Amino acid sequence: MGKKVITVDDYFNGVIQSDRVTLSKAITLIESGKPEDKESAIDLVSKCLPHAGKSIRIGITGTPGVGKSTFIESFGQYLVEQGKKVAVLAVDPSSTLSKGSILGDKTRMTKLAVHENAFIRPSASRGVLGGVALSTRDTIILCEAAGYDIILIETVGVGQSETIVHSITDFFMLLTLSGGGDELQGIKRGIMEMADLIVINKVEDHNLENAKILKNQLINALSLFTIGADEWQTKVEMCSAITGKGIEAVWKTVENYIRLTKTNSSFDEKRKKQRIDAFRELSGQQFMHFVHQNEDFKNLVTKIEHDIVTEKLSVHAAIRELISRITITIKSS
Amino acid sequence: MGKKVITVDDYFNGVIQSDRVTLSKAITLIESGKPEDKESAIDLVSKCLPHAGKSIRIGITGTPGVGKSTFIESFGQYLVEQGKKVAVLAVDPSSTLSKGSILGDKTRMTKLAVHENAFIRPSASRGVLGGVALSTRDTIILCEAAGYDIILIETVGVGQSETIVHSITDFFMLLTLSGGGDELQGIKRGIMEMADLIVINKVEDHNLENAKILKNQLINALSLFTIGADEWQTKVEMCSAITGKGIEAVWKTVENYIRLTKTNSSFDEKRKKQRIDAFRELSGQQFMHFVHQNEDFKNLVTKIEHDIVTEKLSVHAAIRELISRITITIKSS
Repeated sequence: MGKKVITVDDYFNGVIQSDRVTLSKAITLIESGKPEDKESAIDLVSKCLPHAGKSIRIGITGTPGVGKSTFIESFGQYLVEQGKKVAVLAVDPSSTLSKGSILGDKTRMTKLAVHENAFIRPSASRGVLGGVALSTRDTIILCEAAGYDIILIETVGVGQSETIVHSITDFFMLLTLSGGGDELQGIKRGIMEMADLIVINKVEDHNLENAKILKNQLINALSLFTIGADEWQTKVEMCSAITGKGIEAVWKTVENYIRLTKTNSSFDEKRKKQRIDAFRELSGQQFMHFVHQNEDFKNLVTKIEHDIVTEKLSVHAAIRELISRITITIKSS
Repeated sequence: MGKKVITVDDYFNGVIQSDRVTLSKAITLIESGKPEDKESAIDLVSKCLPHAGKSIRIGITGTPGVGKSTFIESFGQYLVEQGKKVAVLAVDPSSTLSKGSILGDKTRMTKLAVHENAFIRPSASRGVLGGVALSTRDTIILCEAAGYDIILIETVGVGQSETIVHSITDFFMLLTLSGGGDELQGIKRGIMEMADLIVINKVEDHNLENAKILKNQLINALSLFTIGADEWQTKVEMCSAITGKGIEAVWKTVENYIRLTKTNSSFDEKRKKQRIDAFRELSGQQFMHFVHQNEDFKNLVTKIEHDIVTEKLSVHAAIRELISRITITIKSS
């Protein structure tokens, strides 16, 4: 008696009915590195696609210690109390090494995790280059098809992870702390330019004045950036994730952003651009991966690399040789 | 009466005879973006290749203000006085914007520039991705064929430029200053790991003690890194490029490195690996560039991107569709 095989239709029905166990299994399928799972995963996502796209996708970043988990717990609880369905995902390229350094410990979000309208997915390790972006994009589609209104995507900010999360979300939030001086230097300029909102977390009575100073510094710094096609000026909010103070203001800021960008059409334009950009970037990687599976190509590369090592060919000449030997044919559909 | 056409043989003969004007023109040919120049450039480098490879290639980096130009002037003069022929190149991805921010002003190396055994090449702007690495690699081959024993390659450290320079040199040198405290934090960890030698520049009597403290801090920090296949422990030297003090010690360190790595064979192994790595990385880019020139491929991509925008296809499904429609054939030579 073999193990019961879950078909693509089984997955699809479970996801559409918002069954969290099936949703979890479906995400595992998407993250699977096995070739036999890959086809099923793409088919499943294709089936879910017409039911997806209706959520607000929010990226959340910040250095360790800034209180991301507590913030997400607090923000997520506020949202489910407003009647929203909230999914929490994580992009963590380092988890291949550390085996799930963020969201890995679900106990950090105890209240949110048990709420029936919340779904928390710890980050899994994913090997292939570009794989994180692709599989997280697909996971979002599944969560949306399962009826989640808000998708929170946490990142630790290792390597390219912030860029990845920014490229798959509608709204990007940077959490920071007010310490007493050098905070601005601690924020990478590239990240500030990505942010739609900077949240100063852990603001209590004793550091309120420092936080206000930082807020003004940030507003000054942000005023130097030009406003993009979304016509949005990056905002700064203060909050205390532990007391919940300021959390509502964060959500109102997100709502304002969504209202503005849906009115001026930049919301849809941004999503379209994100999909096209992802296709252009990732198709190149996947295509090279495909090409390298061709036996004749492999043999040719081996021969050319031998000529490079023995200095018969310069690198440049080797590339010309490689390309001159390849013919590409496009099949009609 | 047309302009006299310089043939590949003309270029080759001039380069081999170490004619600096022809060498300059040949490098311009290599850096040219024109398709008609590309073939000639590759042929020229191929002809030069058997005459190349005998120099020591030294990468030099450091933040602005550290005195790179003065150091190179001083180091270069020392080397020509030892009877060496020295070529100075620059890798500066930012020069597309700033029109040559490093070595652009030759007057900064007045003494070296007029020496008959020195060749200074200001950085030119180069557009194509991966183009800088490829053209600098080819430029090195020309300089070596022209008989230069030492190739100094300066970089400003913008973007990936340090990684590029590290990937085409035998020895990588980081210049720094002793200020009085936070220097270690100012050095990017990735760059320290690349360095074979850290040179504390501008060390005069008044800051000698600070420099010694920094030297010890650096030695301590470096001791944390594991030693690579070259068996070399990164060294720290102090110098004053203006007085010339310490310059000889820098050169002796380079010589020690070369002696060690030629003895344990890692010198040649590293060069082979650099060439293979460059081929693997750059052939992918150039291949995709080639593929995108195919009309059928372009039409297919346009159609698929339309399906992505209209949400008929997920990004993942779109990539699968693209790849399933392509056939690759390898011609025999």
